[in-house]
Amino acid sequence: MFQALAKASATLGPRAAGWVRTMASHQLLVAPPKALLKPLSVPTRLLLGPGPANLPPRTMAAGGLQVIGPMHKEMYQIMDEIKEGIQYLFQTRNPLTLVISGSGHCALEAALINVLEPGDSFLVGVNGIWGQRAADIGERLGARVHPMTKDPGGHFTLQEVEEGLAQHKPVLLFLTHGESSSGVLQPLDGFGELCHRYKCLLLVDSVASVGGTPLYMDQQGIDILYSSSQKVLNAPPGTSFLSFSDPAKNKIYSRKKKPSSFYLDIKYLANFWGCDGQPRMYHHTPPVISLYSLREGLALLAEQALRLPTVTTVAVPAGYDWRDIVSYLIDRFGIEIMGGLGPSTGKVLRIGLMGCNATRENVDLVIEALREALQHCPKKKL
Amino acid sequence: MFQALAKASATLGPRAAGWVRTMASHQLLVAPPKALLKPLSVPTRLLLGPGPANLPPRTMAAGGLQVIGPMHKEMYQIMDEIKEGIQYLFQTRNPLTLVISGSGHCALEAALINVLEPGDSFLVGVNGIWGQRAADIGERLGARVHPMTKDPGGHFTLQEVEEGLAQHKPVLLFLTHGESSSGVLQPLDGFGELCHRYKCLLLVDSVASVGGTPLYMDQQGIDILYSSSQKVLNAPPGTSFLSFSDPAKNKIYSRKKKPSSFYLDIKYLANFWGCDGQPRMYHHTPPVISLYSLREGLALLAEQALRLPTVTTVAVPAGYDWRDIVSYLIDRFGIEIMGGLGPSTGKVLRIGLMGCNATRENVDLVIEALREALQHCPKKKL
Ligand SMILES: Cc1ncc(COP(=O)(O)O)c(C=O)c1O
Ligand SMILES: Cc1ncc(COP(=O)(O)O)c(C=O)c1O
Repeated sequence: MFQALAKASATLGPRAAGWVRTMASHQLLVAPPKALLKPLSVPTRLLLGPGPANLPPRTMAAGGLQVIGPMHKEMYQIMDEIKEGIQYLFQTRNPLTLVISGSGHCALEAALINVLEPGDSFLVGVNGIWGQRAADIGERLGARVHPMTKDPGGHFTLQEVEEGLAQHKPVLLFLTHGESSSGVLQPLDGFGELCHRYKCLLLVDSVASVGGTPLYMDQQGIDILYSSSQKVLNAPPGTSFLSFSDPAKNKIYSRKKKPSSFYLDIKYLANFWGCDGQPRMYHHTPPVISLYSLREGLALLAEQALRLPTVTTVAVPAGYDWRDIVSYLIDRFGIEIMGGLGPSTGKVLRIGLMGCNATRENVDLVIEALREALQHCPKKKL
Repeated sequence: MFQALAKASATLGPRAAGWVRTMASHQLLVAPPKALLKPLSVPTRLLLGPGPANLPPRTMAAGGLQVIGPMHKEMYQIMDEIKEGIQYLFQTRNPLTLVISGSGHCALEAALINVLEPGDSFLVGVNGIWGQRAADIGERLGARVHPMTKDPGGHFTLQEVEEGLAQHKPVLLFLTHGESSSGVLQPLDGFGELCHRYKCLLLVDSVASVGGTPLYMDQQGIDILYSSSQKVLNAPPGTSFLSFSDPAKNKIYSRKKKPSSFYLDIKYLANFWGCDGQPRMYHHTPPVISLYSLREGLALLAEQALRLPTVTTVAVPAGYDWRDIVSYLIDRFGIEIMGGLGPSTGKVLRIGLMGCNATRENVDLVIEALREALQHCPKKKL
């Protein structure tokens, strides 16, 4: 054994030896990029768009820590704490609650890939971009997708959903709680119960709402709930999380075919996140540092036990181009706000007040900045 | 517009108002977890396993920076620098070179999901766990998977691959360059050319090798190459990267059906990573902070232009249980090394020397620690 290591030690002597040897047959065609020889530069911005929101100091500090092994017991401890934090945030006792190593879209995809089988009927509330995306993914997976479409700004009533359930007999209904492209908060009371009467599971996107508006997964009968790190939790983008009720879990565990993804296969993730009572096995390498930060975001929430409204959507005043207003705020004030998205493009401005950014001072600041923008931006005569 | 914001401001007054109001019909069933009320605790570890490796100070500092908007021009600048860094690392001029917002497995899945269509013939070199995983994903996608199986420790010759190509007429061949579960470095010269004679694309996993051993994507005729952040680049786990040759790109762009994933759909990612010359559009929120760190890992490489061997695999000495040795090193020295993985489980110890961890001092330290472990760990009489 020491021989092999001694060899490794020896090759460390002339460090570039292997490299130089190979140069005989291959050449360095691509030179080290000049731009990478300059230091990394990141400007300071107050992010009052629909997310990501700024990181509080404690979460930034976690981002600057050293890596530990993803399978060390200290890492499992952090993962367990994160799970408990999500259960608190979601107000659920579901054992099958875990983190996805990807953004909010990745959590949505994880839900659909595991729950839907080809040919399954899938009812989708489309009142903005997030429903469009859920429908798109459903189609890729070979589900029979039934969109219920509303203009941006609309929401779905119990009666409308009941008609869809009766007509299409879906196995799954998708609703967006906080429709951040149009600024609508979808009521959720009663929808879980209604779905269950029709033997349908209820999947809810709470990326832009949970932690900022009341949401009670278990009491509201939500079967699958997901959200992500970069909004009200004030953690860096890159992780998202998902929880499944027992009926949702049963649907997954009784699939006939494996889901189309290994990376997002819930059976493996459930094991890695300690949800199945079995010894944890390597599945993929989780984003260790992002998990530290997510843990801190959840800890801040546990300490505060406070919840705030998140994205305020305001109509672009007649005669103005939204782009002028957005540019004015970023150039003059270093404040990010956003225009619309998908069906709300061109129609609204979206102002996010999330976690540590949700202060009176920031509201006053953005109001002042907007007032100035309206004075200085070009206005078409109407 | 000001009215809506004034309303937002007003609700900030009694911050918990909405929350309290809803308490009438719903209750807080899950209390804030106690574990989250303690500070985050992360031990110091020298990670000499097969990865992740430790972060150098500069990369840690990047992890502690503030978030900026993923669609700010400064972020696009960082993304462009990362792309150039990968092109240098991979020694490729492929315009279709980009980052995946997920781990190494996610990059493998992105490659297979975009390239393979149901029914495609897929030839897989299985000489350890990574080939097993590629075969598993190929099957989930409905490809006709043809594994060429070797015992761990084996590699594939040009002749063996040619037989597989002739027999199965695959559209894609998978090989692992650095087989980190068995410690084998797969030779790559000539394999690209051979595949192209059989109209097959060559996909190579370089997660545990690139940056540590010579690899020349363009000159070696590799069509699809991927790696990830947490090994030789010394960046936090959570991002990975992929590059496609023109023929690989053509196969993707002439697909009949959309790939089964939206999150990993290369057409959208190509746009978001500025590879298609079109204005960049929102697709998903990338892991901003992880990208800062990845940029620093690539910058350190560009500055050093040095490459090192990565994972040294040594047989477990007869009579010993590998677990005793691994535990001894972590308990007494705070050093992580790893046992085998998949087919090499129980047979080998894996010692990683990556990036800033690849020093003479660490080699001497791990040799000394192993020497002591062999003196103190129980040994069965043979
Ligand atoms: C309501 C909602 N759902 C889903 C997403 C998608 O999340 P991500 O961008 O992290 O993929 C967003 C992001 O803005 C969102 O606001
Ligand atoms: C050769 C090789 N391929 C793929 C992977 C998978 O990468 P990840 O764990 O980031 O998903 C690893 C991780 O150790 C590896 O060593």
